[in-house]
Amino acid sequence: MIGATPPGTRDVLPDEMREIRAISDRLRAAFERAGYGEIWTPALEYEDVLSRGDERAAGAGYRLFDERGRVLVLRSDMTIPIARVVASRLNDVEPPIRLSYLAHAYRAGEDAPAQSREFLQAGVELVGTPAPDGDAEVIALVIGALSDAGLGRHRIGVGDGSLYRGVLESLEVPEAERHALMEALSRRDLVALERRVAGLGVSRAARELLTSLPALRGGPEVLDRADGPVARAAENLRACHELLAERGMAERVIFDLGLVRELGYYTGAVFELYDPAVGFAIGGGGRYDELVGRFGRPMPACGVALDLERVHMAATAEERLDREAGRVREGVS
Amino acid sequence: MIGATPPGTRDVLPDEMREIRAISDRLRAAFERAGYGEIWTPALEYEDVLSRGDERAAGAGYRLFDERGRVLVLRSDMTIPIARVVASRLNDVEPPIRLSYLAHAYRAGEDAPAQSREFLQAGVELVGTPAPDGDAEVIALVIGALSDAGLGRHRIGVGDGSLYRGVLESLEVPEAERHALMEALSRRDLVALERRVAGLGVSRAARELLTSLPALRGGPEVLDRADGPVARAAENLRACHELLAERGMAERVIFDLGLVRELGYYTGAVFELYDPAVGFAIGGGGRYDELVGRFGRPMPACGVALDLERVHMAATAEERLDREAGRVREGVS
Repeated sequence: MIGATPPGTRDVLPDEMREIRAISDRLRAAFERAGYGEIWTPALEYEDVLSRGDERAAGAGYRLFDERGRVLVLRSDMTIPIARVVASRLNDVEPPIRLSYLAHAYRAGEDAPAQSREFLQAGVELVGTPAPDGDAEVIALVIGALSDAGLGRHRIGVGDGSLYRGVLESLEVPEAERHALMEALSRRDLVALERRVAGLGVSRAARELLTSLPALRGGPEVLDRADGPVARAAENLRACHELLAERGMAERVIFDLGLVRELGYYTGAVFELYDPAVGFAIGGGGRYDELVGRFGRPMPACGVALDLERVHMAATAEERLDREAGRVREGVS
Repeated sequence: MIGATPPGTRDVLPDEMREIRAISDRLRAAFERAGYGEIWTPALEYEDVLSRGDERAAGAGYRLFDERGRVLVLRSDMTIPIARVVASRLNDVEPPIRLSYLAHAYRAGEDAPAQSREFLQAGVELVGTPAPDGDAEVIALVIGALSDAGLGRHRIGVGDGSLYRGVLESLEVPEAERHALMEALSRRDLVALERRVAGLGVSRAARELLTSLPALRGGPEVLDRADGPVARAAENLRACHELLAERGMAERVIFDLGLVRELGYYTGAVFELYDPAVGFAIGGGGRYDELVGRFGRPMPACGVALDLERVHMAATAEERLDREAGRVREGVS
């Protein structure tokens, strides 16, 4: 197979590329208008830089050696490299620091051989603005940018990345069990989650909390049902909702208290972008108030990344739905 | 050094990135207008794909292993991957096939530790159009695209990649010596070249040819001084000059019979882009009539790649010269 590309990678031919460029050009313009300056970081990073940000991020990547024997990794996202830059080359820049990027990231992904291992991301990082203002700014920006790029049906799921972990901690669930529960939750495997929760040596009320929390999903009313150890996170999400309502963006938000993101560096709000025209997330992100500090400059931060190929698929699917709806309307009139 | 990037790589901050984007957006638009559709190929290729194109291209790259133990290499240019695509996924497309790209390439470069190991390239490949028409189309396109991108002083050096090698062959110079001579020539080390030529067991006329050829550099008049084994290459370059003169581009061309390019796949005309405002080449390319055939679809082809960071440096240097010239004129008036 002399024409083959490595597993999880592919060639993008001109017709598709033109559409992906049209989307990414509009996203870049939206980010630039909002004051987010584009940045480029090397595709190759030292492994110890990535693992300082997140052990899993370093482990997920393709590894190779430089001529001195140091381990290099193809970046698996842009957030950790940007945290590095903010704490080093931008160390004398006053916050808030607004940065954007359009770059490929890589995941070696032996466990998920069918997935993309090279994917094009467009995203923003807002460093120095705490919750809830920073969360609301980033959420509003990505919703508006996707509208500019041609989507009309997109929604953002908003949860709290520290919420479930915090509940497990407050219930003194053993470390090994916590990991398995978080993993089931991140896979949205609620059956496995319930089975594991049933085996925990905790009170019935605690078990109920652990199984009901992931089902709390919907408008701001779900936040009213969050009390006990969940109240503080709900308070931040409610404040975020108010800020988004002021910007007329609230109806785009789905609160989702079972939302967790794979990476360990999220400390507050977490986001996932959806489009009902397709059955997969088209992007995600969240608040990572401890990450920049790991590089020597403690600062709150949050960001979001879009998967450009998935955004493109969503745009194509929306167009098809619009055409079909048009035909239906024509048929009716 | 927790803020460090691997040797030969660097972070590009927003002010510089904005200027590089402005240049690359204009180049992309120029390529698109000329009918060159943009393509993306994976940053990682199988090593045997790259080495099928050129042994040196595969050797120059960062290597790693996939989970099945196959060797992957970070692409060191886009020409070989595009040859692969033309012969596989675009196999049913009628020539000429016009493709463009904007992508990073990588060179591990242990021997040149100070050089860039990650560099952003914008380029075109014209597949299916033989010399001299294909050469003239690509030369005219890249000259015009650089003008669109803001340069005003740029020139293109045009030589013949098979010329010197062909002369060495016709003079029956031993293989080992040929390699050393080509290497000295590609480094433009004319002192080393002369020393090596002096030690060859060839006639005085042959020695004179081998040392005088690299000095033939200038307008189309240098082609008139090329005879003997050099005449055929000169004939193609003269035809190319006529086609460029018709397009009003001839004054941008410097014929350079000592120009050779590092990679072994060039079979005809070779190009190097210069701007007198800076002291280094800002791009290069040439004709590679055998490369696409190595992937199963024999077709003539030629292409050119620009190094975006170097084009940006040239644009900045030109602006400075223009400003200084402006001040001089103001002082005079």
